[in-house]
Amino acid sequence: MEGPKGKGGGHVHRLKLLHLFFSSLFLNVLFSSYLFLSHRPYLDWSRAAAAEAELVAAIFCSGHGRAYLDGILVDGVPTCECNTCYAGANCSQLLPDCPADADSGDPLFLEPYWQHHAGSSAVVFSGWHRMSYRTTGDNFISLELEKHIRLLHEAVGNAVTDGRFIIFGSGSTQLLNALVYALSPENASTPASVVASAPYYALYKMQTEVFDGREYEWKGITSKWVNTSVSSMENFIEFVTSPNNPDGRLRQSVLGGPFIIYDHAYYWPHYTAIPAPADEDVMIFTDSKLSGHASSRFGWAVIKDERVYQKATEYMGVNTMGVSRDTQLRVLKLIKVMLAEMRGEGGIFEFGYETIAERWSKLSKAISSSHRFSLQQLSPQYCTYFKKIRDPSPAYAWLKCEMEEDVDCSAVLSEAGIISRTGTVFEAGSRYTRLSLIKTQDDFDLLLQRMEALVSKEDIASF
Amino acid sequence: MEGPKGKGGGHVHRLKLLHLFFSSLFLNVLFSSYLFLSHRPYLDWSRAAAAEAELVAAIFCSGHGRAYLDGILVDGVPTCECNTCYAGANCSQLLPDCPADADSGDPLFLEPYWQHHAGSSAVVFSGWHRMSYRTTGDNFISLELEKHIRLLHEAVGNAVTDGRFIIFGSGSTQLLNALVYALSPENASTPASVVASAPYYALYKMQTEVFDGREYEWKGITSKWVNTSVSSMENFIEFVTSPNNPDGRLRQSVLGGPFIIYDHAYYWPHYTAIPAPADEDVMIFTDSKLSGHASSRFGWAVIKDERVYQKATEYMGVNTMGVSRDTQLRVLKLIKVMLAEMRGEGGIFEFGYETIAERWSKLSKAISSSHRFSLQQLSPQYCTYFKKIRDPSPAYAWLKCEMEEDVDCSAVLSEAGIISRTGTVFEAGSRYTRLSLIKTQDDFDLLLQRMEALVSKEDIASF
Repeated sequence: MEGPKGKGGGHVHRLKLLHLFFSSLFLNVLFSSYLFLSHRPYLDWSRAAAAEAELVAAIFCSGHGRAYLDGILVDGVPTCECNTCYAGANCSQLLPDCPADADSGDPLFLEPYWQHHAGSSAVVFSGWHRMSYRTTGDNFISLELEKHIRLLHEAVGNAVTDGRFIIFGSGSTQLLNALVYALSPENASTPASVVASAPYYALYKMQTEVFDGREYEWKGITSKWVNTSVSSMENFIEFVTSPNNPDGRLRQSVLGGPFIIYDHAYYWPHYTAIPAPADEDVMIFTDSKLSGHASSRFGWAVIKDERVYQKATEYMGVNTMGVSRDTQLRVLKLIKVMLAEMRGEGGIFEFGYETIAERWSKLSKAISSSHRFSLQQLSPQYCTYFKKIRDPSPAYAWLKCEMEEDVDCSAVLSEAGIISRTGTVFEAGSRYTRLSLIKTQDDFDLLLQRMEALVSKEDIASF
Repeated sequence: MEGPKGKGGGHVHRLKLLHLFFSSLFLNVLFSSYLFLSHRPYLDWSRAAAAEAELVAAIFCSGHGRAYLDGILVDGVPTCECNTCYAGANCSQLLPDCPADADSGDPLFLEPYWQHHAGSSAVVFSGWHRMSYRTTGDNFISLELEKHIRLLHEAVGNAVTDGRFIIFGSGSTQLLNALVYALSPENASTPASVVASAPYYALYKMQTEVFDGREYEWKGITSKWVNTSVSSMENFIEFVTSPNNPDGRLRQSVLGGPFIIYDHAYYWPHYTAIPAPADEDVMIFTDSKLSGHASSRFGWAVIKDERVYQKATEYMGVNTMGVSRDTQLRVLKLIKVMLAEMRGEGGIFEFGYETIAERWSKLSKAISSSHRFSLQQLSPQYCTYFKKIRDPSPAYAWLKCEMEEDVDCSAVLSEAGIISRTGTVFEAGSRYTRLSLIKTQDDFDLLLQRMEALVSKEDIASF
């Protein structure tokens, strides 16, 4: 009787095992179906592009460079684009005697931030994404992006946007001239006088001279015009950069006329304490110095007066028919990440501030013992964003050569293997020169090393 | 004895089943490992963005609209953006008495092309993709993109680029004024005279007047200047649009002076036969009318003279510091697809040509019986790209009202529920009006329906 029982038991076992097997098979099928039916439609047309992007991002460049999707191809693969002074297929080779390049305001200090926020900051463009000239808002503006820009200013507390108009530009660059145009008189007998206080950002003058419109002309630095009568102020357009490029100081108008363009490119907690939200009639901001995406060419202006807004909008329409909608989508994503991560460990302002404050502190320390060089004086200041007194963290060091014989400060640095931007570019004289603190860590490390060497030579010379 | 045997047999069976079970389990584990270990590193940081893009792309808009990643959110989901005359959450509702809008040159006829090439045309941007001002080439230009633009002209045979310079702009829009600037004399006593032949694209005049540079001024249509002496031609900058907007005709310079800007926005096989590669000194193209991505704001100029190239480059640098690098990456991808698919079933020129030729044929047929309206005369012509005689496929129908009383042709159409662009915009008089053939299929269908109704009323009236 065991037989049948055994047989029966075996049968039951077999059934159980069969059941298990088929369950497992079912799970297998279910699992693969899940992956292929739920993930494939999920990642169908975007899969190849995503895989390509990840492959390129994974190309090893020794931490001294990176490969991009649109990089130059060698054997079909994008090559590493190395940081300054690094070379070789994998950027592993530090070039000897390569000058430290502290010239440009290339905001690559924020690159690691975005590398750490890879998952949330990526964007996928379908081939048919928003092809039309038209977008959600009037004048070629994405309403979601406009909304998020307002939310960001609100969250940071660096500008009042309620009841103001917002216009987009290809970087602040395009907006500078658009606003000179918008603030210039339409049929006046004399063109508007465009001015700025030295040291000033060279592009103000350059644009006014290159575009050479009949309605405006460059009239130099404000100090020449401080005794102008109040009535004549109507004819001035004053650029005020705050914090200032190159020296990082918060600034106000010198002439106090009615037409002022506040360039607030650096009015973010990375670079300065925020004493209060800016509340001027015309304010310009740029994503280049906010998120660090200088490549995207995206800026915006916050404008109080409707007529000025309309004229600037007209300029944007006729100049480029608005800003690339591709860029508008990308910047929207970046601002969403900045908003979501704000005031936490993953905050961009926390990261940005700490990075530059440390660089400034190291450079200051290196120069503190020098009699030959000095830096601009910046003091700790209360910041409404961080809700505490914070140390300086300017985008640039504004270096002065103190010795009588060092007439050309930039040349002095150049001899010591440091590329800087001479003060004459800022109409401040050649005794000054600008050093960028916002480039890659490699750039800063080399700059610091060279400055330390230069200052230590001074100590030796003084013995 | 059956028992043990049975039992033994059962045991073997159990072992086999266990083996199968574990094999299946192993397969399960292997399978999931494969998917998670091979696919996860593959799609790691890009997965969320890819899933988001596919989810949004899958939003159902009844074939009369689409949702975009940066669309206006309702309950956290982007809303459908409906084609003209369609409404409702899913764009399913055709609005009664909605005018057919044939006004703008919005190139949405190419949208289905990119929807059909979804897998190859998508691009994934990492958050840290190319943040620097600098890119692979000088003057903010992607070398890979420049190379692919040259390859495309070579493959299509519509322009000579060997030994020429290429400069990028935010659409052809920005390049038009950049080239007026570049061709204007630097220190001449009289500004350059900027002219075009009617009917002409209105932006030429508008830009010249809005930017109002001291070096150039708008001087109207070429017919006013045909008797100008050869020596004075030095002072003219002539815009030549070929094929012409609005009438689609291939054109040459009327004045024959040394400074001519050839606007070849429509010199692609979608819109015209290509009799030979264009070989002029200054030629402008735009991606808006090539791939249909008007939103991207991307154009380029092919320039023979180095000094002109340098001056236009200077303008681009001072105006916007080059074109969005985001857009440059996207356009690179689109051109790669166009090149890969060329001359086959998936060819964009084949698709574009067939779409517009069919629209033109239907509209021509609808109007052929009319005594009230006429269209521009275009004949079949040999095309070096298609290597055959092809029918006309102009971007626009250039409609004339033939009846004495129909002085304002655009108003006549407007009364019949058709929005067109009046001929006065093109300085051609109000007897003419322009109808766009390159918008969505919905736009065209409605236009055709309204034109047919309008012409059939004519038949009834003549009884």
